[in-house]
Amino acid sequence: MPIYKLSALAQRIGGELIGEDLEVKGINALALAEENDLSFVESRKHLEAAKKSLAKALLVPPALKDELPDKSLIVVSNVRAAMAKLAWLFYELPLPPSGISPLAFVEVGAEIHHNVSVAPFVYISAGARIAQGVVLFPGVYVGPKVEIGAEVIIYPNAVLYPGVKIGPKSIIHAGAVVGCDGFGYAQEGGAHIKIPHFGCVELGEEVELGANTTVDRATFGATVLGKGTKIDNLVQIAHNVVMGEACIVAGQAGFVGSTRLGRGVMVGGQAGTAQVNIGDFALIAARAGVAKDVPPKGKVAGAPAMEASRWRRCVAAYERLPELLKELRELKKRVQALEEEKKNG
Amino acid sequence: MPIYKLSALAQRIGGELIGEDLEVKGINALALAEENDLSFVESRKHLEAAKKSLAKALLVPPALKDELPDKSLIVVSNVRAAMAKLAWLFYELPLPPSGISPLAFVEVGAEIHHNVSVAPFVYISAGARIAQGVVLFPGVYVGPKVEIGAEVIIYPNAVLYPGVKIGPKSIIHAGAVVGCDGFGYAQEGGAHIKIPHFGCVELGEEVELGANTTVDRATFGATVLGKGTKIDNLVQIAHNVVMGEACIVAGQAGFVGSTRLGRGVMVGGQAGTAQVNIGDFALIAARAGVAKDVPPKGKVAGAPAMEASRWRRCVAAYERLPELLKELRELKKRVQALEEEKKNG
Amino acid sequence: MPIYKLSALAQRIGGELIGEDLEVKGINALALAEENDLSFVESRKHLEAAKKSLAKALLVPPALKDELPDKSLIVVSNVRAAMAKLAWLFYELPLPPSGISPLAFVEVGAEIHHNVSVAPFVYISAGARIAQGVVLFPGVYVGPKVEIGAEVIIYPNAVLYPGVKIGPKSIIHAGAVVGCDGFGYAQEGGAHIKIPHFGCVELGEEVELGANTTVDRATFGATVLGKGTKIDNLVQIAHNVVMGEACIVAGQAGFVGSTRLGRGVMVGGQAGTAQVNIGDFALIAARAGVAKDVPPKGKVAGAPAMEASRWRRCVAAYERLPELLKELRELKKRVQALEEEKKNG
Repeated sequence: MPIYKLSALAQRIGGELIGEDLEVKGINALALAEENDLSFVESRKHLEAAKKSLAKALLVPPALKDELPDKSLIVVSNVRAAMAKLAWLFYELPLPPSGISPLAFVEVGAEIHHNVSVAPFVYISAGARIAQGVVLFPGVYVGPKVEIGAEVIIYPNAVLYPGVKIGPKSIIHAGAVVGCDGFGYAQEGGAHIKIPHFGCVELGEEVELGANTTVDRATFGATVLGKGTKIDNLVQIAHNVVMGEACIVAGQAGFVGSTRLGRGVMVGGQAGTAQVNIGDFALIAARAGVAKDVPPKGKVAGAPAMEASRWRRCVAAYERLPELLKELRELKKRVQALEEEKKNG
Repeated sequence: MPIYKLSALAQRIGGELIGEDLEVKGINALALAEENDLSFVESRKHLEAAKKSLAKALLVPPALKDELPDKSLIVVSNVRAAMAKLAWLFYELPLPPSGISPLAFVEVGAEIHHNVSVAPFVYISAGARIAQGVVLFPGVYVGPKVEIGAEVIIYPNAVLYPGVKIGPKSIIHAGAVVGCDGFGYAQEGGAHIKIPHFGCVELGEEVELGANTTVDRATFGATVLGKGTKIDNLVQIAHNVVMGEACIVAGQAGFVGSTRLGRGVMVGGQAGTAQVNIGDFALIAARAGVAKDVPPKGKVAGAPAMEASRWRRCVAAYERLPELLKELRELKKRVQALEEEKKNG
Repeated sequence: MPIYKLSALAQRIGGELIGEDLEVKGINALALAEENDLSFVESRKHLEAAKKSLAKALLVPPALKDELPDKSLIVVSNVRAAMAKLAWLFYELPLPPSGISPLAFVEVGAEIHHNVSVAPFVYISAGARIAQGVVLFPGVYVGPKVEIGAEVIIYPNAVLYPGVKIGPKSIIHAGAVVGCDGFGYAQEGGAHIKIPHFGCVELGEEVELGANTTVDRATFGATVLGKGTKIDNLVQIAHNVVMGEACIVAGQAGFVGSTRLGRGVMVGGQAGTAQVNIGDFALIAARAGVAKDVPPKGKVAGAPAMEASRWRRCVAAYERLPELLKELRELKKRVQALEEEKKNG
């Protein structure tokens, strides 16, 4: 168990220590923390929980620095980022033993760095190149000519089809499938003729793919996920999708073939796109069905998706539709009454 | 092939036998049943099919006890439950041979009951504890310190990340992933800093997870599924979700981090939630997008979800919107006509 | 690298060669093609890209035969189908070595053709029958009594539960799960009693299942996918669904138990169905929620789904709802003014 002084932690993240320079042994949420844990308060709404927490040491934003006199505080502007960074000090990632297990199967002609961890039941095909520090958990399949960059972690039973490239420090979760055939057919006489997919998939540095997520290979060229892009579980990324750097895609979202995302795009869960262009830093709400291009920094919601603030107004009106109908019916009666009076008058 | 007398079956489920005490050799649907099969009639709408069925023995509700004079009947109030219970008598679950296969890989320091079935290509990590009667099909990965209760069945290629706890008699279908990292990042300077996930996943007794379903580990604490909760295929359950006992979640539904479900909640397919609280015995319709808390026994539908009966009225109005627009336009003309007459009059 | 003369290619697909009888070494998209590649122009909107392409040889439709005088053209009525067929000439599918790997596990009593490719870590159960030319990639699980037709390819870590039948020339992508239990329970006293699933899954000839797609076994009888039906990634097909021949189902769509599709049905991504009948050649739009039967050749969209052209009108009206509300409010005022004048008049 590591032990850290708060002063050392404050220094690491450029925070200011207020109060006693305690030692902490772990990090935990306010409600779960024990006395020797560091915890964190993201905003004022957690202030009461912070006061009740057993944790004596807290990461807090500047606005709360005078509100917790009984605690030792590390004051930082971005509490969540500070928490994320410090948490790794207390986290031990359980990894399989290093070396290539004799129970793994390595085809002749794979290039594997000597400093890797290849578990039993891993299959590595000819022409694959695996850089230093890579960890392949049991049941991972590495196809021919796959390239895996340094310090990549691939969890159990993930599958990399031929020619896939994974950037350094990427993480592929269990059951994810990268490089499967795109869903492309030509129609002729009522039958569907399969189109072979010559392309590949390229994941940049520090990409993360969630469990059971699928990324199709391109028909020609490449399906690309930019550096630092993070994909949640059960997401479908079709052939020739191109995502910029640092995108965030939540669970069960799906992207039709050749969709393009700029950098820093955030996509909510269960959202879907037609073949559109989505500009840099756009926000796609959860469950949005994006059928038109989205401009940079655009915020869209609904299905079909529209500008998010307009969508909120449409939803509000939609929820009042039964009353609206009633009002319309009443108004018709009043107009009819006026018309009849007119006629009779 | 087992053979049962109807009197014995009736006794097992507390049903009343009417007619000849036949012997049955199997159970099947009305249209597929052969002469010696037991079949079942859930309601009057299946009465004609029952008459035509080759099956001579039927489970029926009390309301139909006089309607099928040519058949032997077991009368029970809950036909479906009786069918479910009796069906197991005729069902033979194909299981791998017992014992630990020499082709499985077991790390030093795993505790495994002697009465288990561990297939080839299973990986069991140090500190795992596997109780009696557990069946691990080929390709299952059991991470460090995973605890698997008695009589659990885990189908091929399912993955249990470190520290996951599976309650007794649970069933995990093929490709399901339990305990993968939650999708949590801190944003700083346009980059996404991964937050380590210290928590775990706890499945209660008799939980069932569908194929390729994913359940994330908690950031801190635990993602929890209560006793008897059943999850269909391709469902996404994010970090720190807590579900009560006996929930039912249909395929491709998704739950955002920290969503809370009470007990007995039923969730339709492709539904999704924001971080909300859903009360006991609530019904969430298929494809609902739940953005607000749902009270106990609440029934919601639509996206954003609203009270289900109100949603039906909104949908009805929505479907009439083109006519509504037209009516409004016509009404405007009539009002204008009245106004002009007034002016001219 | 294969080399083909255009005249030979034209002959294969019944096309007309216009221009020089060049040799081509590959096939590629217009923007990516090199000088010796064959490329293709599906419609006039790609004409400029065709002119700029390095490719000297192009597949074109009749309408464009006079528009590209600098290129060698193969004129065909269905460019996409021609491309799909010719592309296979240049495509080399990376397959594992033939034979049964000594690192695969084959139970006693499986019938395996001598001409197959069974990779390491494949598990084949007793009673399985595997025809000639079948390729099983690493980590595939073949349950008891599974039947796999000739020339089927099953990618890594796919799982076939007991009794599943796969038609000849079918393709199962990585992580797909076929034949898992249907999601069926009987409710009694607040608990969910699991119903055993006696049925199986039958895939016809030339069926393709995408990565991580799930197909449940029938309760009784069979879940059936007709010949030539193609299913994308992460699709959920519940127990007793029956699909006709040559259906196309895009990613993340889901089908409730006992849904029936005729032949040639096309289903968009993230669509879902209740237990309905969908007629031959119907088109279900992406994200449609189909709650009612769809007639043959019907086109539906929206959730709940309605006739597609009507849905477009509803959507158009929906998007104008905020203005509609305003108009209604103003109209009420005008009517009120008329009424008051009347009273005062």
